[in-house]
Amino acid sequence: MARQPGADATLLVVGATTRTAGIEGISAAGADPGAMAHTPSADLEVVTYGRPVRAPVVPVSPTGCPTPAVVTRAVRELVGLETVAVDAGLAEPTAAPTVALGEEPGEDVRESVAVPDAAGLVERAHDLGRRLPGPFVVGETVPGGTTTALGVLTALGESATVSSSLSENPLARKRAVVETALAASDLAAGDLAGEPVEAVRRMGDPVLAATLGLLRGADEAGTDVTLAGGTQLAAAAALYRHGGGDVPLELATTSFVADDGSADLWGLARDLDLSVTATDPGFDRRDHPATDAYARGEAKEGVGMGGALALADAAGVPMADVRERTVALADRLLAFDPPTP
Amino acid sequence: MARQPGADATLLVVGATTRTAGIEGISAAGADPGAMAHTPSADLEVVTYGRPVRAPVVPVSPTGCPTPAVVTRAVRELVGLETVAVDAGLAEPTAAPTVALGEEPGEDVRESVAVPDAAGLVERAHDLGRRLPGPFVVGETVPGGTTTALGVLTALGESATVSSSLSENPLARKRAVVETALAASDLAAGDLAGEPVEAVRRMGDPVLAATLGLLRGADEAGTDVTLAGGTQLAAAAALYRHGGGDVPLELATTSFVADDGSADLWGLARDLDLSVTATDPGFDRRDHPATDAYARGEAKEGVGMGGALALADAAGVPMADVRERTVALADRLLAFDPPTP
Repeated sequence: MARQPGADATLLVVGATTRTAGIEGISAAGADPGAMAHTPSADLEVVTYGRPVRAPVVPVSPTGCPTPAVVTRAVRELVGLETVAVDAGLAEPTAAPTVALGEEPGEDVRESVAVPDAAGLVERAHDLGRRLPGPFVVGETVPGGTTTALGVLTALGESATVSSSLSENPLARKRAVVETALAASDLAAGDLAGEPVEAVRRMGDPVLAATLGLLRGADEAGTDVTLAGGTQLAAAAALYRHGGGDVPLELATTSFVADDGSADLWGLARDLDLSVTATDPGFDRRDHPATDAYARGEAKEGVGMGGALALADAAGVPMADVRERTVALADRLLAFDPPTP
Repeated sequence: MARQPGADATLLVVGATTRTAGIEGISAAGADPGAMAHTPSADLEVVTYGRPVRAPVVPVSPTGCPTPAVVTRAVRELVGLETVAVDAGLAEPTAAPTVALGEEPGEDVRESVAVPDAAGLVERAHDLGRRLPGPFVVGETVPGGTTTALGVLTALGESATVSSSLSENPLARKRAVVETALAASDLAAGDLAGEPVEAVRRMGDPVLAATLGLLRGADEAGTDVTLAGGTQLAAAAALYRHGGGDVPLELATTSFVADDGSADLWGLARDLDLSVTATDPGFDRRDHPATDAYARGEAKEGVGMGGALALADAAGVPMADVRERTVALADRLLAFDPPTP
């Protein structure tokens, strides 16, 4: 499974919500806390249609940084990338077509159980993953997802650092959340090593459960799969490894995550035997509020952005074209009135 | 709305089942009656992935003629056509991503009510149609759909002829079904003129209800929409006209339907003020079991085939390329072992 994703790959974007995102100060995936529950639904619409359709929000950070879904959409338009949205537990409706796997949002990780039907979700995603034609690439949209990723990594006993959609990573705050979550589950760090389904049930989110299942299904079918994202997808890989999965895995992410000194993507990749491709879209070479925000360290990754950039690269699309299309889509998105409910 | 669909249009494929399809001898949309309930789910998978993924059937007629979904898929691959599957009431699961509108299959039209929640389905499709970016093109997959179309046309008092997926149109059999259906609803021909929602509730199927709603929504939003299909889509246009819809409409169909002497597409189009584009894929110029079956008059249309051909034409793709891609996909489909349940 470790080869570079080809331009003929299908990008699966797995979306869900977790009540963990409601904890103050851990996520920038929405203009305000009320908008955040709609962000994954809106992200899937941006990938599918180029703008929100039913989600009554424009997915931006509190500072106005547009969702990484615009980068994925830009690549989709430039290379005719096929995308499939997977609903692993969206809280709010979306007009994007989805493959529905679960439909129950995740609970706050500070509760004793974070993903009540983790086993069922893993199983249904496994079934989908073994059936889908390959190669495929898996990305995610789940606000609060780096905190649940940290929870899972901690429970498994892996390196407990993750990246952030905020330019200043609130890692201390996330660690405090994870400490509370471990206590609620009566666990210490490393207690769930080798028990990935229990780790995601106690400390994870629905996207992590679904991604674990997709990896197992692809493994069973011998299908090439690439992880498109940063530390959240690395946490999914950790779940796969802790269940005995030994197929080589590729992680395609952005230079923003790879260069994030507050995370330790390279250490995680080494520990988990992941081959990393980090693509730099050169946003520092384009003066625009959207690209400037990324260059400052906001958003960094998400909605398959790193995988989409790798696919654009594999298809021979110059990054300058990706930048121009991204800027055009971001301008259109930021000028768009949110849909009425 | 009457302009030729451009290559930038999104194709919506609205899928559902109706128990009407279980009536012997009215549909060729499945290898056997047991397979027919899976056909729309499989068709949506063929459009999305090029082959069945979860539906445990290979969608072919009893004589082995492959589903028109392969033609739509061929065009999708050739022009990067964006497609969105709409679930208006599938009886069986699909691995295709869908926008779910209803999820209740239609009843047998010989019952007094054929689409119990017709009003709700029209309303939800209306909401989707007014939100979706345009231009869009609407196709269908619903085995038994020409019989329900005949039912609706009869109830509205429009010209009561429809085409068929069988080379010999069992029109007398369909008319007998419609007579029984009218009697079950205590109706005579023309009794529901001007009452489209009641006509589809009594005599239609979920796809007709959803398409009526999509047309109304596009009308409200001023979005360009093209109907991609034959007499079933003409029946949807009849519903729209009987509700007072007066925007010019384009119907993009295949030469197989346009040339079908047993149907009266041109008369319907005149009565309903539809501008017709009939595209000939030249299947008589390609010697292959799949193209030969179409040239003999099997299948004829469905799953947006006529609209897809018009989009290929608008994009400047030679029909010879469409034929070669269709044949390659049909060979792959016919050699494919149906997925295990």
